[in-house]
Amino acid sequence: MAKRDVKACMLIIGDEILSGRTQDANLAYLARWLNMQAIQLAEVRVLPDDEAMIVEALNIVRARYDYIFTTGGIGPTHDDITVDSVAKALGLPVIHHPEAVAMLEAYYKGALTERRLRMARTPEGASLIPTPNGGAPGVRIENIFLMAGIPAVMRGMLEGLAGTLEGGRVVLSRTIGVFAAESAIAQQLEEVQKANADVAIGSYPLMRGGRYGANLVVRSPEQGRVDAVIDALIAQFRADGLEVLDGEITRSE
Amino acid sequence: MAKRDVKACMLIIGDEILSGRTQDANLAYLARWLNMQAIQLAEVRVLPDDEAMIVEALNIVRARYDYIFTTGGIGPTHDDITVDSVAKALGLPVIHHPEAVAMLEAYYKGALTERRLRMARTPEGASLIPTPNGGAPGVRIENIFLMAGIPAVMRGMLEGLAGTLEGGRVVLSRTIGVFAAESAIAQQLEEVQKANADVAIGSYPLMRGGRYGANLVVRSPEQGRVDAVIDALIAQFRADGLEVLDGEITRSE
Repeated sequence: MAKRDVKACMLIIGDEILSGRTQDANLAYLARWLNMQAIQLAEVRVLPDDEAMIVEALNIVRARYDYIFTTGGIGPTHDDITVDSVAKALGLPVIHHPEAVAMLEAYYKGALTERRLRMARTPEGASLIPTPNGGAPGVRIENIFLMAGIPAVMRGMLEGLAGTLEGGRVVLSRTIGVFAAESAIAQQLEEVQKANADVAIGSYPLMRGGRYGANLVVRSPEQGRVDAVIDALIAQFRADGLEVLDGEITRSE
Repeated sequence: MAKRDVKACMLIIGDEILSGRTQDANLAYLARWLNMQAIQLAEVRVLPDDEAMIVEALNIVRARYDYIFTTGGIGPTHDDITVDSVAKALGLPVIHHPEAVAMLEAYYKGALTERRLRMARTPEGASLIPTPNGGAPGVRIENIFLMAGIPAVMRGMLEGLAGTLEGGRVVLSRTIGVFAAESAIAQQLEEVQKANADVAIGSYPLMRGGRYGANLVVRSPEQGRVDAVIDALIAQFRADGLEVLDGEITRSE
């Protein structure tokens, strides 16, 4: 039986993203990491530090997607409310996780204050996602993964998760560039897309060496189908006298 | 009477963002632009090129927020479905907008093909958002603004909108840095936040010159309240023997 698609949703939590103070640097990284796990990032929401909004969004998306990844709001300060919001959404109490307490004790040695202990709080029944430098861990509860907002820490947490999540169909993609305005090739593209409804064809503006064109990305779980559609596009463009740049097949981007 | 808060939601539309192929560069820019219009960016959703998902999200957020801004999906190719999705959400037919047709005729001169005319399609009753280079315009219909995904084009469209939207309360912010771990100051911060519930205090990790600390951002529509809370924080930190970097008051970031 063919594997089904496995889908994830990301919740980026933090007033500083919505105010424009901080540029998110985690979305594209997580998306590519998920591709490597054969998981598709299907939706992202950016939410403020507002418990009611986080709880509402969580309860919608956790029922809809296989995995939920949150970034941000797991530090020691009063505006770090992700753990409490997740617990509330799941109807679980918040506890001090014994393993997390032990990790923080080892990390802070004699200086584990009450505030720092806050970073050992998890919804009851959670497991931990270690952070490479040994500091405050991420949290997994049900299908929700709570990760740090700081990119280097988030990436470290993902490293520990690699290979541990059940993926689905691997979506492959191949990209070609063509030096023609999108509007000049849109008709041909639409015809090729209609004739090959099982693949997804994306068209994105391209500029290289001062020349304008379009990048065309063909995505499908079947390499043969990707290649066949790319070949059809190349043949069409060459017949139209257009210059084509051919790319490599990769996990979908 | 005090002005109310005016809130916006952004929908970033495109498979290429969710696949990690393209790093969004519009969120932080739009957020800061909205701050200048006295409008708060309250939520962002990143959605695939999927009409059903776009329609569902639009119908939720357009009832909840004052303004909706979309980026992406307004080009001439088959995967550009934002206009159709917005029309469907609003229950409106899609027409060729006469002004947009005229703009494209002027831009493409004799070469206005049927595919290029696609970029003149709008929901019935829409007005246009000119794009500075004279190409395909953005679209405004009801409280929804459809903008290009290409950052330079989106920014040009925003330029034309500046000062035309009704804003609300201007939220001011002031930032100080303090060289102390967030966990070392979290208790004091929480007390100051509790004693000043009318302002929002955010805490974000800071690294400068190899030293670690925290940036504290105080936000409020009232400059006097921002200053009073910042002064209280500075006094507290200095009493604790910590070094403080004082910032300037600005529109909120």
